[in-house]
Amino acid sequence: SSNFFLLSGPCAIEGETMALQIAERIVKITEDLKIPYIFKGSFKKANRSRVDSFTGIGDEKALKILRKVSETFDVPTVTDIHEVSDAEKAAEYVEVLQIPAFLVRQTDLVVAAAKTGRVVNLKKGQFMSPESMKHAVRKVTDSGNEQAIITDRGTMFGYQDMVVDFRGIPTMKQYAPVVLDVTHSLQQPNQASGVTGGRPELISTMARAGIAAGVDGLFMETHFDPANAKSDGANMLHLDLLEKLLTQLTALRTTINSL
Amino acid sequence: SSNFFLLSGPCAIEGETMALQIAERIVKITEDLKIPYIFKGSFKKANRSRVDSFTGIGDEKALKILRKVSETFDVPTVTDIHEVSDAEKAAEYVEVLQIPAFLVRQTDLVVAAAKTGRVVNLKKGQFMSPESMKHAVRKVTDSGNEQAIITDRGTMFGYQDMVVDFRGIPTMKQYAPVVLDVTHSLQQPNQASGVTGGRPELISTMARAGIAAGVDGLFMETHFDPANAKSDGANMLHLDLLEKLLTQLTALRTTINSL
Amino acid sequence: SSNFFLLSGPCAIEGETMALQIAERIVKITEDLKIPYIFKGSFKKANRSRVDSFTGIGDEKALKILRKVSETFDVPTVTDIHEVSDAEKAAEYVEVLQIPAFLVRQTDLVVAAAKTGRVVNLKKGQFMSPESMKHAVRKVTDSGNEQAIITDRGTMFGYQDMVVDFRGIPTMKQYAPVVLDVTHSLQQPNQASGVTGGRPELISTMARAGIAAGVDGLFMETHFDPANAKSDGANMLHLDLLEKLLTQLTALRTTINSL
Amino acid sequence: SSNFFLLSGPCAIEGETMALQIAERIVKITEDLKIPYIFKGSFKKANRSRVDSFTGIGDEKALKILRKVSETFDVPTVTDIHEVSDAEKAAEYVEVLQIPAFLVRQTDLVVAAAKTGRVVNLKKGQFMSPESMKHAVRKVTDSGNEQAIITDRGTMFGYQDMVVDFRGIPTMKQYAPVVLDVTHSLQQPNQASGVTGGRPELISTMARAGIAAGVDGLFMETHFDPANAKSDGANMLHLDLLEKLLTQLTALRTTINSL
Repeated sequence: SSNFFLLSGPCAIEGETMALQIAERIVKITEDLKIPYIFKGSFKKANRSRVDSFTGIGDEKALKILRKVSETFDVPTVTDIHEVSDAEKAAEYVEVLQIPAFLVRQTDLVVAAAKTGRVVNLKKGQFMSPESMKHAVRKVTDSGNEQAIITDRGTMFGYQDMVVDFRGIPTMKQYAPVVLDVTHSLQQPNQASGVTGGRPELISTMARAGIAAGVDGLFMETHFDPANAKSDGANMLHLDLLEKLLTQLTALRTTINSL
Repeated sequence: SSNFFLLSGPCAIEGETMALQIAERIVKITEDLKIPYIFKGSFKKANRSRVDSFTGIGDEKALKILRKVSETFDVPTVTDIHEVSDAEKAAEYVEVLQIPAFLVRQTDLVVAAAKTGRVVNLKKGQFMSPESMKHAVRKVTDSGNEQAIITDRGTMFGYQDMVVDFRGIPTMKQYAPVVLDVTHSLQQPNQASGVTGGRPELISTMARAGIAAGVDGLFMETHFDPANAKSDGANMLHLDLLEKLLTQLTALRTTINSL
Repeated sequence: SSNFFLLSGPCAIEGETMALQIAERIVKITEDLKIPYIFKGSFKKANRSRVDSFTGIGDEKALKILRKVSETFDVPTVTDIHEVSDAEKAAEYVEVLQIPAFLVRQTDLVVAAAKTGRVVNLKKGQFMSPESMKHAVRKVTDSGNEQAIITDRGTMFGYQDMVVDFRGIPTMKQYAPVVLDVTHSLQQPNQASGVTGGRPELISTMARAGIAAGVDGLFMETHFDPANAKSDGANMLHLDLLEKLLTQLTALRTTINSL
Repeated sequence: SSNFFLLSGPCAIEGETMALQIAERIVKITEDLKIPYIFKGSFKKANRSRVDSFTGIGDEKALKILRKVSETFDVPTVTDIHEVSDAEKAAEYVEVLQIPAFLVRQTDLVVAAAKTGRVVNLKKGQFMSPESMKHAVRKVTDSGNEQAIITDRGTMFGYQDMVVDFRGIPTMKQYAPVVLDVTHSLQQPNQASGVTGGRPELISTMARAGIAAGVDGLFMETHFDPANAKSDGANMLHLDLLEKLLTQLTALRTTINSL
């Protein structure tokens, strides 16, 4: 397809029913729009600000749900890993291993992911320049894996805000396909409450600008009921809004491809 | 026109011939593309980093050239002012008075510009939030002038870099029409040499993202020979590249309008 | 004196009585501590966020009060200027002309101040690197004036916060004597209200760190009743706290001088 | 002792001889100055920008050298851990477990460190606010360990620079004892070469400002021959300069204690 690809799903796997329902809905929309689709769900949330934040339903259980989604709808899936020992385990269940932004400088973790032979989605650290992602990609290719992708989820701007630097998109496309994470890049970290804030009303603006700037893919978290999601509720897209958004973005992509 | 509008021309008025030649070329292109066009040229450069930087050919002389451009091609013109006393003087020659980014907090200057009745183009300070531009616009409207526009030329990011925060575009559109300054927002200030750097290869990326994010207008400086321009050569667009760029952006705008 | 020097006074000259009372108190304290003292007061506030903010009691009136403070207590005074025409006018009344941070890139203004022969206090722009202040100082010296000083009042850090970069102090001391503005550097700009916030409880921490890092002088605004001051109340030091603070800082300076 | 405490040693354990020689020298200096001393050395470098950077001499071997330093000189030691499985292993050899700045949001790692009962040194993430360290400390105390300390190693400022925000020191002292890492906070990350730069000539300025701002401890990496060190050579302090620096800082601390 000449359309952009999409990584989308709930922030965390909260249960089988919700995962299958969300996947079904997105699969239907993306098939219609010829958007290559990868179902996203975290099997564990390892970097919450507070010890009492939700961290998951159990690793094995969540990974099996990811496999079930994949088998049911014939789509690849992506999940994030946090320790070297996660790499092989998760690689048995998913097609894409994601390195969280905070961990993208951990050489052992990146190399372990690369060595599974799976696609490695490297999130740009909020503290890294676009240019410095060259080194992260090289750790993957030096491990004999040519399937790195880079996802930009914004860059620290002061203590409590993030900004997406669209200049980085053409820069990082020199190293690997580039994805814009439109929901996390709207986060506002380090809030007094210990719970990250967000600005979901800007999702469409971010996504349009990303497509116009030439991204290869988009990443967005979505949920039937963001306000009651167990994590990242402040910045997920309501699933009911997804079809219209992707339809618009596909039209925009068609124009961009024609220029 | 449903197309975006354009403020464009050389950074500084270096002489009558160059101004007329640049204007003629842009007028031709923008007429074909139905882009409302405003010729831009500074009559004085007042905020150079170094005392030996080029500051202009003489205020009166430059302002007269601006008027001549306007009369010759029947287009409005815009120039920037730096002191209260500039406001009335420049208002005799141009249709749009621009408040430089460093000066947008100077109440007396903004009010003086507003009181001339001309359109007032408020550049967002590199040190200001999109939300804080509400106060700058209010200074114009409180002076009885409803014709404010806001131009974003980027925000400080560390000492030697700037970033455009596209979240600010929908925010600022609540206050006034919003223009993206695609050439200055690619500047890299505070370089060791005392001469601001730039990344003109990213002009197209910035402009596309701006149109996609919903700007009303674009601002870009252009020159027959940027490398030999008397100011801001590091980030002006070569005039030969303008037609293709504006054609692409017009196609993109047509799609955006249809969404 | 081997002690640091001090620029201090109210943000704005609100009237003669308050100016003389504040000056008297500070003169007494600084004489005891052998701190060379310069009385500070703005004759006009030109860069408020909102048009309805307090801007002054009248230029001439305020300047005359500055002269009266100088004559009454035999201390030099400092005030800030905003337009070229202010330079000569203010120079008749005060010994030090201050260039506001937002205006330090305005060449005409810096040159006009320099040409009066008065000391020129260049505030580092919140958007400038320490290294770039070299160019501002050179504009003063190129105008035949060797009496430039630099005052650091912090650097933009995201939209709503500022940070003091203490690495800049030794850097800027290569160009001119360096002052730390401990009250403005604690400001938090671009607040939703349109009124700048502040964190006055950190004044002592900032001042101590500044002395330890080797500043030549300190700048701090003070008032009998900061909460009811007509401008910058959010970050002035209460006058009752000044003596203890300066006593502690003098002890610290004595140690620093001995290392 | 009423003096500050010191975490110091080479960036990485390169071998037994170098570790013992460096420790011997620092032990001698700190005994004379009554500075409580903790020997620092990484047993593994896990977050290098490039896969070909030095990562260590072998985990077990390095940890045994740390224990030998401790036994030889009767000083506690500190090392950093990167995965949950490192916590118990390292806790057998050292008295203080350090959580690297990039990893301080990894709940499992912080909890694993806390559960060993060792002192936990939490490095403030370059992407975290001082206030947000409250949550990191709470993860330690919620695990039944009251011995957390916080080390500030600077905050991202643009892509290629870091700044120490001294306002954060009193803030973080509300949560735990605060250490300033004077060598890492002078790093300049994301350099084009893939090797982090530094500004070691500013170590004394940073350390003085930290003591003046009230830190409880200092962290500084040192080496006989920084230029030839296997990691972080760009910003370690030459060991020959340590005695003079600590002598000056002790004098400063004595004054601060007396205020």
